[in-house]
Amino acid sequence: MKKVTVKCPATVANLVCGFDVLGMCLEDPADIMEVFLLNENKVIVRSADGYPLPEDPAQNTAGAPLLEMLKEIDNNIGFEVLIHKKIKPGSGLGSSAASAAGAVVAANHLLDNRFSTLDLLKFSMFGEKVASGVKHADNVAPCIYGGITLIRSIHPLDIVELSSPPMYVTVVHPQIEVKTSDARQILRKEVQLKSAIRQWGNIAGLVAGLLKNDYQLISRSLEDVIIEPVRSMLIPGFEQVKTGCIEAGSLGGGISGSGPSIFMLNEKKESAFRAEEVMSKVFSEIGIEYKTYVTQINPRGVELVDNN
Amino acid sequence: MKKVTVKCPATVANLVCGFDVLGMCLEDPADIMEVFLLNENKVIVRSADGYPLPEDPAQNTAGAPLLEMLKEIDNNIGFEVLIHKKIKPGSGLGSSAASAAGAVVAANHLLDNRFSTLDLLKFSMFGEKVASGVKHADNVAPCIYGGITLIRSIHPLDIVELSSPPMYVTVVHPQIEVKTSDARQILRKEVQLKSAIRQWGNIAGLVAGLLKNDYQLISRSLEDVIIEPVRSMLIPGFEQVKTGCIEAGSLGGGISGSGPSIFMLNEKKESAFRAEEVMSKVFSEIGIEYKTYVTQINPRGVELVDNN
Repeated sequence: MKKVTVKCPATVANLVCGFDVLGMCLEDPADIMEVFLLNENKVIVRSADGYPLPEDPAQNTAGAPLLEMLKEIDNNIGFEVLIHKKIKPGSGLGSSAASAAGAVVAANHLLDNRFSTLDLLKFSMFGEKVASGVKHADNVAPCIYGGITLIRSIHPLDIVELSSPPMYVTVVHPQIEVKTSDARQILRKEVQLKSAIRQWGNIAGLVAGLLKNDYQLISRSLEDVIIEPVRSMLIPGFEQVKTGCIEAGSLGGGISGSGPSIFMLNEKKESAFRAEEVMSKVFSEIGIEYKTYVTQINPRGVELVDNN
Repeated sequence: MKKVTVKCPATVANLVCGFDVLGMCLEDPADIMEVFLLNENKVIVRSADGYPLPEDPAQNTAGAPLLEMLKEIDNNIGFEVLIHKKIKPGSGLGSSAASAAGAVVAANHLLDNRFSTLDLLKFSMFGEKVASGVKHADNVAPCIYGGITLIRSIHPLDIVELSSPPMYVTVVHPQIEVKTSDARQILRKEVQLKSAIRQWGNIAGLVAGLLKNDYQLISRSLEDVIIEPVRSMLIPGFEQVKTGCIEAGSLGGGISGSGPSIFMLNEKKESAFRAEEVMSKVFSEIGIEYKTYVTQINPRGVELVDNN
């Protein structure tokens, strides 16, 4: 049976001042997915780790995108997916996006890459719809394209790949539950114009800093006056982590996606490890279980690790 | 008497999706200012064209910044300013900014450039306060720095110079009056979060397009879903001009500052002139007097034209 194995990386949506439009791909953690080509029109998704998965593939974040892909194909084929989950669901690190993006990239390899990257992105967004009710792209886009991506527009879908200087990323995942739907509901539907102006000054500064390799501009622009003040209340220890990491040399950071994970960007490896120490100290003292990662921006996105 | 003459260019604030944070400097039109060094602590501002100017220099857009500058100087000196106005006040092309920026740049030359560019910007913002009640920087920053500037933040003042590919700019100034204060008052103080997200996707796209020399990305990003729908109602012919120019090949454009001038960006000189034809036709048919300019981005800002 024809089969490929792909590595599906974690992603950080929003990047502080780019709510719903920016995302960044990480080297670590990453899921492993094995995808088999079937000679009948069906999709099967299984967990290698014993996670309970919905039986109906249309209700599964990996299954729904594959069903969409199959709609575009005449042949009588299908896919079986075996997921080795390393990115914890509900971590805010794009666990559902990794499954959705990994499935379609793997399937496309099995189909001799007949679909474009933009097609794959569109399919994968159906997985996000299953996961959160919204076809957002700020995790699946960086997961597929790699690096840092701007979703300039969803209708029509317009993805801009943003280069960046090398950065180390420190992540902490405190093991508490923040549901994406809850994190979305607590946001006000209207914002002050003056706050919106401050926010678009910051995102413009962040994009300029990334493209100009200007670490200090990136640092100054990592400010969110709209979402973070509300959502950070759901994450105990958030302020101590952020303040402590910046004091320890991080450029800045904030909530990863809708949380509860917190990420910090660093120019130097040493400050990335110091940030990890700060995070560990804060959550140890609060008494919340946590996991940390010191990693880098992943410029490749989902990638083939085996195709025999 | 020591004297310098400076050319003080027009500027386009906002650049469609960058309300209050982006501005662009134009080659044409431009004021000429003659500034004389006096040996007593006073500021005199005169019009070479017979414009009535406030007698109190603190109430004048060129005078107020010079008074601020003099506060920082021990010596018993002052300035006399003679303004040749080419940028019509109330045009939306940064007429007050040209006076404020030109005065301080000229004065700094007379003082052997003792102040930094950022100092000059801070002084010039006092001129904008006199003109519109607000110390905004989206005209004075590009007027002093040249090119396209991002005002990432006002407090603290953080200016980012953005490179751009060569572009032709077509401008029409319909001779109607739109007061900056009125244009500001009709804006709602709150905006929909989903509109704000669309706007920051666009400004991020525009900045990326400018830095990556990507004309098509610039074109797609020139969309304003917050300010333009409200303010354009104050400008008869706005929709016809915008639609007609884009059909004629312009990349996009919108209201210059708070209007009534409209600007369009163009990759090619030919479409810049076609845009001018469209503008002329629209305002001729409506029966409003107008003036057009086909010009380019000015990368230098205020500049010395004579220093004897």
